[in-house]
Amino acid sequence: MPHSVVEIIGAKRDGGRLSAAQIDWVIDAYTRGEVAEEQMSALAMAILLRGMDDAETVRWTAAMAASGEMLDLGALDRPTVDKHSTGGVGDKITLALTPLVAACGAAVPQLSGRGLGHTGGTLDKLESIPGWRARLSTAELYRNLDEVGAVICAATERIAPADSRMYALRDVTGTIESVPLIAGSILSKKLAEGTASLVLDVKCGSGALLTEPERVRRLARTLVATGNDNGVRTSALLTSMSAPLGVAVGNALEVTEAVSVLRGEGPSDVTELTLALAREMLASSGLSDVDPAGVLASGAAYEKWRALVTAQGGDPDADLPVAAHVHTLRAPRSGNLATLDARAVGAAAWLLGAGRARKEDEVRHAAGVRCLAKPGDRVSGGEPLFELHTDDPGTVEDASRRLHDAYEITRGEVRTEPVVLERVTGSDVAV
Amino acid sequence: MPHSVVEIIGAKRDGGRLSAAQIDWVIDAYTRGEVAEEQMSALAMAILLRGMDDAETVRWTAAMAASGEMLDLGALDRPTVDKHSTGGVGDKITLALTPLVAACGAAVPQLSGRGLGHTGGTLDKLESIPGWRARLSTAELYRNLDEVGAVICAATERIAPADSRMYALRDVTGTIESVPLIAGSILSKKLAEGTASLVLDVKCGSGALLTEPERVRRLARTLVATGNDNGVRTSALLTSMSAPLGVAVGNALEVTEAVSVLRGEGPSDVTELTLALAREMLASSGLSDVDPAGVLASGAAYEKWRALVTAQGGDPDADLPVAAHVHTLRAPRSGNLATLDARAVGAAAWLLGAGRARKEDEVRHAAGVRCLAKPGDRVSGGEPLFELHTDDPGTVEDASRRLHDAYEITRGEVRTEPVVLERVTGSDVAV
Repeated sequence: MPHSVVEIIGAKRDGGRLSAAQIDWVIDAYTRGEVAEEQMSALAMAILLRGMDDAETVRWTAAMAASGEMLDLGALDRPTVDKHSTGGVGDKITLALTPLVAACGAAVPQLSGRGLGHTGGTLDKLESIPGWRARLSTAELYRNLDEVGAVICAATERIAPADSRMYALRDVTGTIESVPLIAGSILSKKLAEGTASLVLDVKCGSGALLTEPERVRRLARTLVATGNDNGVRTSALLTSMSAPLGVAVGNALEVTEAVSVLRGEGPSDVTELTLALAREMLASSGLSDVDPAGVLASGAAYEKWRALVTAQGGDPDADLPVAAHVHTLRAPRSGNLATLDARAVGAAAWLLGAGRARKEDEVRHAAGVRCLAKPGDRVSGGEPLFELHTDDPGTVEDASRRLHDAYEITRGEVRTEPVVLERVTGSDVAV
Repeated sequence: MPHSVVEIIGAKRDGGRLSAAQIDWVIDAYTRGEVAEEQMSALAMAILLRGMDDAETVRWTAAMAASGEMLDLGALDRPTVDKHSTGGVGDKITLALTPLVAACGAAVPQLSGRGLGHTGGTLDKLESIPGWRARLSTAELYRNLDEVGAVICAATERIAPADSRMYALRDVTGTIESVPLIAGSILSKKLAEGTASLVLDVKCGSGALLTEPERVRRLARTLVATGNDNGVRTSALLTSMSAPLGVAVGNALEVTEAVSVLRGEGPSDVTELTLALAREMLASSGLSDVDPAGVLASGAAYEKWRALVTAQGGDPDADLPVAAHVHTLRAPRSGNLATLDARAVGAAAWLLGAGRARKEDEVRHAAGVRCLAKPGDRVSGGEPLFELHTDDPGTVEDASRRLHDAYEITRGEVRTEPVVLERVTGSDVAV
């Protein structure tokens, strides 16, 4: 045996670097089942506590991608570009952004995941559309990319299978919050899906995966460096996730809001972030002369949305599920909404049924929260602040309690955070 | 669920203390199978890298002991005292020490393990005696302790079962070398076996589990503090394991040497360490007025050995297995033997068949090495330095190569290390 897993764990445990050969071997052996789950979790904890340098992270990512099928999108007649968000509350950006960028002339291969914990998953949201299918065959994926210019679908088990197993393992072993492992997990799937360019939406604030700004910045830099070193043109926007994005949090509620963005009637923060990410994606794929605001205003992005939903079996005109119970929380007094805690709103939506505790749980498509006021808004005492949507009235009490603690009303001035905080390209950070 | 394992792993990962309730819960849940192997290995790595303080280690040890049966030796009419060695090359001390201390009037419940790697196991050594049985029922164990005053037997699966599983897990996940986990593993079994006093032989040097003197000292202090805090009178001797103990390394060869010690004809270092540990054990159990050297010289310890072997089905007069091949290595030149590397000699004996690579392997009872010169001895060119005993002549070449690199001959003076380096009691270290 050329390598011993105990030796590799020991090297990282003692603060050493892993060689390219060691990384390739350990991930291949894990994929083949020769390295056991308990060995990989010990290695993950050693990596979390000892770190990996840039070269180790680049290699780790490439080896994770190489653990399965690598799609080749080279036959398409358009540049390929994808977006990935590190996840936030009310983050339905993919839904409007994907058809918008496709309408601008790029092909968008959006292979997505499901939600776990307080942030929702893109596929869960789209599955509230009657008939819509998340699973596409590889042939369908190529055909839809060619004919529609976009897919939003589930990554098959053949895409970076070692990463899928390792993500589930990290979830139960306290080893999620490692910057190099997060970067490796995100980018290995994007490498395998074959996109030429990638824009990362790295969330910062209470509703984000990582909450400390310095660690978020480090994650953004690591993602950008690791993507570019693996041959994918990669840049990132650091964006605010202190408050939820938009008004709606919950699957069908967010689909409705994404459609309103595509019709030019969306909340200003969601529209602004969608356009900022579209510009970044277009610039990254040689289409910087196309103006996404014009394409959005023309209705072409909305038409592309309808084509995308239809191509995956969905009916864009169907009614979305609505909740059996809607409960309203009102402002206790007048003033300015100073803060609205994204994590608490996410937790409330989760309690109402919008999320899942375990992979095998079902989400309730109609459940969620609508935030009728956002930080900086003037509110009057007695005015509705939140709508709680649920099929189970027994969940309202707990969710209301979370929301009661989720905001502050002040008499003073409120300074709100911009939607886009920083832009990260190559090794530089530009404001 | 009162505790979440991911929360407990996260607390230790982030450098926090585990509460008594968290420790009790996680070990109980691991015993019941609710906490999975991959979660325990991540926790073990976090403990290895973040440490545990004295209070955590004491509780961890108690919880590991409580994972199974706790023997009650209170009905015996003699004080109970046991010895544990952290393991060394040629360490056959238990074989002569146990009957010696029993002959001095104490009861010695020696529950032992098998060897893995370069150090041999006490049970493997005794099993070279025809008929001898390592497995005793609990009834036999009580009866032999009462009638003979000593047992040397295998710990059943009911003794600290969580520790047995965790030890096997640590072995394959690079998480052996943690001082609190080593202490917890050693002491949980001793707590469960019910001994009132315990003397630890903590090895220091190339052949030891831990090689850095500072870590060995820390292990000794942790063991002594953890044992005493759990109600077992505990002290430790730090002893030299730079060179092998005695002449013989290998199962039957070591039994022969232990018998020579009991007959007053043993190598001086083995006899000296046996007496030092006996004095420590007698002092610890209120028998400090008994002189073990006198008991050894009287032949009473040898008679106790014969009774102990007989009580476990062995024939003390039977011939021990001998190797089919004996190969002699000679000194290349004259001088003083400056060093003899214990780890290299252990590895050579292992190659000859004395040890096992995996738990399920068989050891060859006759295989091993006899070290005919020890550090400080004058040797003449051409004089035999090592005898290699094996049933498989194909192993001689590799073992010889290891032994060639295992020693140095010098013209200058040689300063040898004392057998006992330090004594550790309570929180103090006395030389």
